[in-house]
Amino acid sequence: MFAVTILGNNSALPAFDRHPTAQIITVDEHIFLVDCGEGTQSQMTKYKIRRSKINHIFISHLHGDHYFGLIGLITSMGLLGRLQELHLHAPAALKEMIDLQLKAADTQLPFPFYFHCLGDDGVIFRDNKVEVSCFKVFHRIECWGFLFKQVKPFRRINPEKAKLHAVPSSYFDKLKWGEHYVTKEGAIIENEWVTDPLPKAKSYAYSADTIYDERIAEKVFGTDVLYHEATYLKDLEERATKRFHCTAAQAARIAQKASVTRLLIGHFSSKYETLEGFEQEAREIFSNTDLALEGVTYRI
Amino acid sequence: MFAVTILGNNSALPAFDRHPTAQIITVDEHIFLVDCGEGTQSQMTKYKIRRSKINHIFISHLHGDHYFGLIGLITSMGLLGRLQELHLHAPAALKEMIDLQLKAADTQLPFPFYFHCLGDDGVIFRDNKVEVSCFKVFHRIECWGFLFKQVKPFRRINPEKAKLHAVPSSYFDKLKWGEHYVTKEGAIIENEWVTDPLPKAKSYAYSADTIYDERIAEKVFGTDVLYHEATYLKDLEERATKRFHCTAAQAARIAQKASVTRLLIGHFSSKYETLEGFEQEAREIFSNTDLALEGVTYRI
Repeated sequence: MFAVTILGNNSALPAFDRHPTAQIITVDEHIFLVDCGEGTQSQMTKYKIRRSKINHIFISHLHGDHYFGLIGLITSMGLLGRLQELHLHAPAALKEMIDLQLKAADTQLPFPFYFHCLGDDGVIFRDNKVEVSCFKVFHRIECWGFLFKQVKPFRRINPEKAKLHAVPSSYFDKLKWGEHYVTKEGAIIENEWVTDPLPKAKSYAYSADTIYDERIAEKVFGTDVLYHEATYLKDLEERATKRFHCTAAQAARIAQKASVTRLLIGHFSSKYETLEGFEQEAREIFSNTDLALEGVTYRI
Repeated sequence: MFAVTILGNNSALPAFDRHPTAQIITVDEHIFLVDCGEGTQSQMTKYKIRRSKINHIFISHLHGDHYFGLIGLITSMGLLGRLQELHLHAPAALKEMIDLQLKAADTQLPFPFYFHCLGDDGVIFRDNKVEVSCFKVFHRIECWGFLFKQVKPFRRINPEKAKLHAVPSSYFDKLKWGEHYVTKEGAIIENEWVTDPLPKAKSYAYSADTIYDERIAEKVFGTDVLYHEATYLKDLEERATKRFHCTAAQAARIAQKASVTRLLIGHFSSKYETLEGFEQEAREIFSNTDLALEGVTYRI
């Protein structure tokens, strides 16, 4: 299972029952939260995402529509008696705010809470299922995108062939990762003789809030699904640029340049009551585009 | 018009579609906001309270369920192009948090924003329609109640009698406030000869989060409507006391001792899915009790 569930797809102001940005990335048993606008914990309740399952939270930047719901979520986790670790990956200034808010409430979190300050492009989390990297995007203030890549073997054991070549099962794990097997006698059993290819590991990029910048396409090149902001329609491209945001068409151009498979667009301005225009303008340039709709889970 | 509209009646965690504390107090053209839990701005949209009409906000204390929605509301006001003054009356520590959050977003509010630190019991706002006072209540951290009193004349001119006694209309305003009229010749025209009594000015007390303490009854004595927290039912009185909260029965006892006309109870714990028990236990002691229900406006 590798999927993204949209909890909020609106920019700045909540409007037309659209909520500020928050997304759940599910990778097997991992449930990651990316951004956490006001009301995210209520959206989680609505869409049956259990707070207790989240161990890593990633915050792209410190505009309120991306993090004002965080302190409420964290303190709720405490009130619910959480004991397991929580890791927050975010711009440095958030730490002081959380500390101040906990101090003012005379509250201590009952669980170990680790703050990881975002500093350079690169891997910020990795285990045997998933690797998460951050990359700088181009907004009015410090802002980070996040790239989620499945970590999984790219070869599958062919049991009959493995038996035929007398490969001991203790070597199977290495075979799955592409290694050859060398017998005690020094003979090489090539990987391809005893394994079959698996579909390649998938990836999802969240490029946060950003002005149109083709360096984004390099950073997310070849991902399976790219989420890119699309705050305005093309008649307001000038306003988009002035505010370090993008139009739907610009998001589509990045998707095209990045050769991604599928584009999701969101972060719609509160000035738009309906969203058809976004889909239409993006699809003219990049046909495999979908609107990031609240409550919907998109498989990667 | 003097009324309170409930935007949130739940404690701590949002649950069962109940929201954390926020109330709108309407006094003629004034729309005051008292407390501002997460999601208050969405609740305001839902119940058609216009953000632009609010010029004074009062925050009782710095537990998140009473203020985590504030920064979102304030920044939304800015995004909506507000220009008129906003006054915030709150515990001192809130100032630093707001400053930090605006700084991290590289945002300046486009309207004059005045922070008034709560310090001693007494009047914190007064004009020709309403007087607002704050009073300390007894919670785990610094916590304030707020008392809203109509400011209005208590006598009405009787035009025929005033004409009979030849009182010039330029004196009518003073007569409404109970003064006698003295003629040029030094004769006293007593107020009661030319005026009739008006119903007395009404008052509403919000006593925030508090442990059971009879000093609250003194502070809100004789108010028309008292809002008192009732976090638990009586079987959990011990837990209530330990957490500096009250049961419904304790809230009713305060209402009784304070000789108020009507009691509203709220701040219900998330452990209760239904609220009938609160109404029942409070009414056994103070019959004119109502549950503070979200979206409902209670006339004072």
